[in-house]
Amino acid sequence: MILTVTLNTALDLTYTVPALVPHATHRVTDVVERPGGKGVNVARVLAALGHETVVTGFAGGPTGEVLRGLLAPLPVRDALVPSAGATRRTVAVVDSASGDTTQLNEPGPVITPAEWAAFLSVYAELLDGARAVALCGSLPRGVHVGAYAELVRRARAAGVPVLLDTSGEPLRRGIAARPDLVKPNADELAALTGAREPLRATRDARRRGAHAVVASLGAEGLLAVTPDGTWQAAPPARVAGNPTGAGDSAVAGLLSALVEGAPWPERLARATALATATVHARAAGEFDADRYGELLERVSVRELATAA
Amino acid sequence: MILTVTLNTALDLTYTVPALVPHATHRVTDVVERPGGKGVNVARVLAALGHETVVTGFAGGPTGEVLRGLLAPLPVRDALVPSAGATRRTVAVVDSASGDTTQLNEPGPVITPAEWAAFLSVYAELLDGARAVALCGSLPRGVHVGAYAELVRRARAAGVPVLLDTSGEPLRRGIAARPDLVKPNADELAALTGAREPLRATRDARRRGAHAVVASLGAEGLLAVTPDGTWQAAPPARVAGNPTGAGDSAVAGLLSALVEGAPWPERLARATALATATVHARAAGEFDADRYGELLERVSVRELATAA
Repeated sequence: MILTVTLNTALDLTYTVPALVPHATHRVTDVVERPGGKGVNVARVLAALGHETVVTGFAGGPTGEVLRGLLAPLPVRDALVPSAGATRRTVAVVDSASGDTTQLNEPGPVITPAEWAAFLSVYAELLDGARAVALCGSLPRGVHVGAYAELVRRARAAGVPVLLDTSGEPLRRGIAARPDLVKPNADELAALTGAREPLRATRDARRRGAHAVVASLGAEGLLAVTPDGTWQAAPPARVAGNPTGAGDSAVAGLLSALVEGAPWPERLARATALATATVHARAAGEFDADRYGELLERVSVRELATAA
Repeated sequence: MILTVTLNTALDLTYTVPALVPHATHRVTDVVERPGGKGVNVARVLAALGHETVVTGFAGGPTGEVLRGLLAPLPVRDALVPSAGATRRTVAVVDSASGDTTQLNEPGPVITPAEWAAFLSVYAELLDGARAVALCGSLPRGVHVGAYAELVRRARAAGVPVLLDTSGEPLRRGIAARPDLVKPNADELAALTGAREPLRATRDARRRGAHAVVASLGAEGLLAVTPDGTWQAAPPARVAGNPTGAGDSAVAGLLSALVEGAPWPERLARATALATATVHARAAGEFDADRYGELLERVSVRELATAA
């Protein structure tokens, strides 16, 4: 199975309004509740691709109960660890005319030392049966900033390939623990390395400790700097739509191809096609399966000269 | 006891953000959850004034459970009727610098005919011990537009004084059923009568069937047209603050004074002082008890010549 870790899971609410106007009162015309947090999104895509998938992290309070209730019918195994604090809500307010989205993210619970210890014990057990693990998203309050570095080290000690998808100081520290793969976006790369030019920044990120770096560059696709070479993967054409969850779908594509032993160009093609099919899908964070199959044939993966 | 009816209860969330910017992502710095809906707010103020108070209406789903959990420690009795559909959330997004508030209101559950029948049975039982009843707020989906008219008639048949605080067609129909009191605000009055001039609109509203009409005119205070005379009550000075819940506090003041048999000027003074103390309070919908006592001495109540 593939394990995804979401320490700060979320109950994602999507509110449709005609148009958001600051300081006005709005009737929400449609409410959608989904289980959320980056690793949960990754797990959903992995399951849709046919992989046995386990979700861990924390869930607590009434919102955590709802999250678990929404996970129950999905083909992913719920191995979330209870927290006393309530799982956060995120609210995406979508203007129905334009599709533009305003995001409001609650901070989430404060995790206690005992809860963190309980999580580490569950994590160790789950690593035992895992073919790969993805560590995804922000850290909840109460969890030390080196938490991802700790989880990377434990995965490596267990011989499980580990992908890290986070930002800021947790990313900086996590990279230094030598994960197999990190997947920053352009902003996260720039914050990490100080470099804006994607190839330079991606190489710099790799030098900080990651075995491989796959940078997601939005509509430009993916840039991968790996021990086997450097590639740029691009979708066949610009796709209009909602980019929410596209990065999580790319992570699922990378992991899926990794556990199948596919070479880098195939991993990148899959990740790019999944991310593009997610942007294209009507519901945020879903992917359009037909579109995925069609895109997979048409993604271009180009090897770059390995300078420096 | 005093009974308050809130057919469309709410779990009220207040999110603090630095400033709401459409189409941006916001970290919510503070989250407050409160039991909400107009009748619930009225009940909270009545309880704070020392009245035995019972809350009914509908509550359902995980949000309904949270609502009931938040009511439990308050000195009001929970007689809410379960609904299969989940209680709505309302989200008030407060800009921390300016205090300006953007409101997002979920539509709430669809009430089934069986749930409405269960409510009517609970309502009949509760009327039996009630000294007054307040019917507050919007109707949930599935409940017929003449629902408040039906509840007014039942209260009158049971000999229980009934106050109606709603808007639109439910108000129009409810007034025709001859409630003891309606408390529209200026917008609701104008929508009902087509008249913008407050005294004319208030008199017109009374002619539609209400025994008495108390119009809330924001910072101008209250205008009451009753069988005993016509009065205008005004706070001593303009008060800056959050007007959320001020109308509900006015309803609580009117009911409280009504069951104590106080004459109209005293009822209006109490309602005006409570509404003003609510605007003044830091937390939306709370009232400042010290400020209330002080304001009660300083509210002006002026009898108007009874023309027409």
